Amino acid sequence: MYFCLVNEQLLKHIDSPKDLRALNQDELPRLAKELREFIINIVATKEGHLGASLGVVELTIALHYVFNTPEDLLVWDVGHQAYGHKILTGRKNIFDTNRQLGGISGFPKREESVYDSFGVGHSSTSISATLGMAIASKLKGENKHHIAVIGDASIASGMAFEGLNHAGVTDANVLVVLNDNAIGIDPSVGALKQYLTNVKKGTQKRNNIIKALNFDYSGPIDGHDIDKIISELERLKSVKGPKLLHIITTKGKGLKQAEKDQVTYHAPGKFDSVTGEIAPKTATTFTKYQDVFGETIVELAKANKNIVGITPAMPTGSSLKYMMDTIPDRAFDVGIAEQHAVTLAAGMSTQGLIPFCNIYSTFLQRAYDQVIHDVALQKLPVVFCLDRAGLVGEDGATHHGVLDLAYLRCIPNLIIFAPRNEVELRNIMYTAQLGLENPIAIRYPRGSGVTVNWKQPFTNIEIGKGEQLKQGNQLAILSIGTMDKNVKVAIEDLDVSHFDVRFLKPLDEKMLHSVFKNHEVIITIEDGTIKGGLGSAILEFASEYNYKNSIKTLGIPDSFVEHGNIEELQKLVGLDPESIRKFILSNL
Amino acid sequence: MYFCLVNEQLLKHIDSPKDLRALNQDELPRLAKELREFIINIVATKEGHLGASLGVVELTIALHYVFNTPEDLLVWDVGHQAYGHKILTGRKNIFDTNRQLGGISGFPKREESVYDSFGVGHSSTSISATLGMAIASKLKGENKHHIAVIGDASIASGMAFEGLNHAGVTDANVLVVLNDNAIGIDPSVGALKQYLTNVKKGTQKRNNIIKALNFDYSGPIDGHDIDKIISELERLKSVKGPKLLHIITTKGKGLKQAEKDQVTYHAPGKFDSVTGEIAPKTATTFTKYQDVFGETIVELAKANKNIVGITPAMPTGSSLKYMMDTIPDRAFDVGIAEQHAVTLAAGMSTQGLIPFCNIYSTFLQRAYDQVIHDVALQKLPVVFCLDRAGLVGEDGATHHGVLDLAYLRCIPNLIIFAPRNEVELRNIMYTAQLGLENPIAIRYPRGSGVTVNWKQPFTNIEIGKGEQLKQGNQLAILSIGTMDKNVKVAIEDLDVSHFDVRFLKPLDEKMLHSVFKNHEVIITIEDGTIKGGLGSAILEFASEYNYKNSIKTLGIPDSFVEHGNIEELQKLVGLDPESIRKFILSNL
Repeated sequence: MYFCLVNEQLLKHIDSPKDLRALNQDELPRLAKELREFIINIVATKEGHLGASLGVVELTIALHYVFNTPEDLLVWDVGHQAYGHKILTGRKNIFDTNRQLGGISGFPKREESVYDSFGVGHSSTSISATLGMAIASKLKGENKHHIAVIGDASIASGMAFEGLNHAGVTDANVLVVLNDNAIGIDPSVGALKQYLTNVKKGTQKRNNIIKALNFDYSGPIDGHDIDKIISELERLKSVKGPKLLHIITTKGKGLKQAEKDQVTYHAPGKFDSVTGEIAPKTATTFTKYQDVFGETIVELAKANKNIVGITPAMPTGSSLKYMMDTIPDRAFDVGIAEQHAVTLAAGMSTQGLIPFCNIYSTFLQRAYDQVIHDVALQKLPVVFCLDRAGLVGEDGATHHGVLDLAYLRCIPNLIIFAPRNEVELRNIMYTAQLGLENPIAIRYPRGSGVTVNWKQPFTNIEIGKGEQLKQGNQLAILSIGTMDKNVKVAIEDLDVSHFDVRFLKPLDEKMLHSVFKNHEVIITIEDGTIKGGLGSAILEFASEYNYKNSIKTLGIPDSFVEHGNIEELQKLVGLDPESIRKFILSNL
Repeated sequence: MYFCLVNEQLLKHIDSPKDLRALNQDELPRLAKELREFIINIVATKEGHLGASLGVVELTIALHYVFNTPEDLLVWDVGHQAYGHKILTGRKNIFDTNRQLGGISGFPKREESVYDSFGVGHSSTSISATLGMAIASKLKGENKHHIAVIGDASIASGMAFEGLNHAGVTDANVLVVLNDNAIGIDPSVGALKQYLTNVKKGTQKRNNIIKALNFDYSGPIDGHDIDKIISELERLKSVKGPKLLHIITTKGKGLKQAEKDQVTYHAPGKFDSVTGEIAPKTATTFTKYQDVFGETIVELAKANKNIVGITPAMPTGSSLKYMMDTIPDRAFDVGIAEQHAVTLAAGMSTQGLIPFCNIYSTFLQRAYDQVIHDVALQKLPVVFCLDRAGLVGEDGATHHGVLDLAYLRCIPNLIIFAPRNEVELRNIMYTAQLGLENPIAIRYPRGSGVTVNWKQPFTNIEIGKGEQLKQGNQLAILSIGTMDKNVKVAIEDLDVSHFDVRFLKPLDEKMLHSVFKNHEVIITIEDGTIKGGLGSAILEFASEYNYKNSIKTLGIPDSFVEHGNIEELQKLVGLDPESIRKFILSNL
């Protein structure tokens, strides 16, 4: 139990914002304390995103107190910070199912509650969505308020600027609350961040960007002073047109360690709700793929001065931080700016640098055109390292990296590789900096590998070369990336062949010809969508060369996969060892 | 011949910027005049983008005069304005091959010239690319200048903001020249445009956005005063770090009609180089697909008040202009902001509006994540109208819309339809506003259809229903969209069946079962990439249902297709009637 002086009776009786609005304003600080404790207590044991929600407890209460939700429409950008919102809007009693299979989502989600007016997960969408709602209200003659809550890291993304730029020339009733805590998951970066810092310090007296974009600007005010927020929100209710309220908050507010170490306490895992101390991790001998990337790029970059590293706002999550710490002038956190990250890499590549651009698979969707138009079309040998590919677990539908194989495969000139293990990741990174003539996308999963001694001497990987993992006499299995693990278990006692295609593009046609000639039935297995990925590539190959073998494809079905742990989700989609085994047996 | 007082001797002797730099500064206005005439004379007969290049003649000369190109690196955003640059950098004598098959590209292109330091076509990439180059120079210890030339419409796009936001916290030697003519292809929009207008009027004295982003800002200056530009560029050479020069130009400068009607003269087709008068179009009885869209949405929106229209900066090109003119409060030009356009539509859709979001196929690549994360995941029935799908002709590799079928097909919940003709486009638009439960992407080509009386009473299209076009006894052809035209010619005297699948998703499985049961050989034909599109969908279908038919897929090969007219390009990729016929005969 978290230290708790008053009893929890206020929060206990709040089942909806209506109950909240029945409180006296002077009771709200007490409610804020209770809400904070509630969040801490549950996240301490159930895990989840902690710091962001603690930072907006007062704001959350104030918004639901002042505005008539759900009639007034409230959009949380990204959604890491919406736990308090969920608890106050009828999900208090199921909040302990947060991020679990069948439980509530870690992000606002329209299906889940009428109070979640827009589903989020990826950043910087809130202003556009809210403006759309506000324009709709205006057309329908409704008199509603429309509020976007967005952090200082998210508002620096180009998409948010596009939303502001449009809103600024409308008379739409939009309120943007800029929750400025100077940090996203990692500390914020960029000129806008510096500008906001100057505003807070009082040294930025001129050149108000927000006003220049035709918004009514107010602030900065203390985002933990609930009375001040309420009075400001009340005042803004009658301000017409687009307006922005700048509030200053502390991420992790209310838990000392979380305030102090904001990066760690973004999503700390299990911790002690009283002391804040993080539970010791279960000892593991295995390294996370992200750390294999992080350690390897440092090793390579020390030897090859042309290597540069780029991350759009994920230094910690990608482990590019290792390079930023050791070779800071060649490692770049560009903020939540995937489009810029990719074209920056393209620009660097034209001058002979070898950019390793590390982007989570799901976020590369945000720079799709840049990969096509700026990199692949110009055949610039940029190295894309796509972390969190495949199913990612508890972050759920918005974060799974299951479309990449399909959406990348149609891009000409691009090499696509999925390492089977840590050693392969390391060696393909080594290979990529030896002087490739094409761009390459290397996609690898969230979490740890299975190899203890992965840090072995580098060896070159031949581009377009697959590998046979098992020889058998019945059918042949073609898997990609780390799916080989489940396949291995599934076929342990079966007399089947198993091949790792490794390169989705270019395919190892020599190996495939041999596979097709020696096996009547071929099964493809991938942790990506069944529509257009490895399975389709093999079908296309067979069509091209007139093979009549029976080909069966196994992958993520054509629907969005929800949250849960990875093992549960694999079972759900039929990619766990048992399901794979059944699938194989049914085709024997 | 354009009116010409002096002889052309200056331009005649300029084969590279070195020759230009040998001139006296007082000769440059004369060169500007010659260069303008040269552009006008060639574009008048050969067609191409006129207005943008006329507007930057003085800037182009000044940049190559002051900077040491190609060592100093010059990036033109979008590239419509780079004709003068091409002519001055060794391509004067082949400029009359502009945009023709085998000729020079209408856009800067790295393969074409060392002076084209970055290939362009899509907008707003220049700042990121230039910053990448500048960081590379710094790391390599080189003392170069890096210049991005970007228009006021392009700098308002989110990606450009991301570039500025990053550049502002570096000491990279980047010069951004903001070419402010208040127009992109259509007049610029948005709060930033209004801000720039106020700067020009002198009414914006405070709140300098560029300075707030930590750039050295200078201007605005007259972009047609060559001496002023040169002296300012010379001064900026010694200003360290990121800097922005704001110049004011007139699009179409030097040709009266082009200055007056800037939208028409963006790319006027053939015109009289003296009078500026546009050549009468060859009389055609057919309507452009874009106009079918434009007229139909007005018709539908008059009857259904929930319909709204959205275009990211293409009112004229998409013909949404018709709706903007007649129902202005429900038709929105949001500027070059594809990401915002899509999520704005999503926001509107949550409130019961029916947004028709019209985006060129190639530009939807820029909002890929928004289609997935904000629309499809939430199953919001947004209607995407994707103009310029398939091969687009002279605009070339950057503009072909040939990846859409593949990159959209892997998105769950999305309906994908390609109308065969104008009537089908019209009817699917009608169907889409009757209350679909899913988002839909409707992709249709550039140019005109073939139906005289397309404006027939609306009829509902059953979702997921294909259509048989011809009954035969040998193989079956499955085509999509307007490819049926070439197929029809190809099979005129052949005893084969022909089906239009119409819906790439959901497939008409009933029809396909019948096709597979009644034909041994099946050929798919699509004007999209062969990797992951219709062909793959049919292969997946056959795999799922254990069909052993022979399936052959015809589509755009897996490489980028260059510029040329559509007929030439179809021949090049094997999609003209003759190639299709050969392909069919080889499979009979």
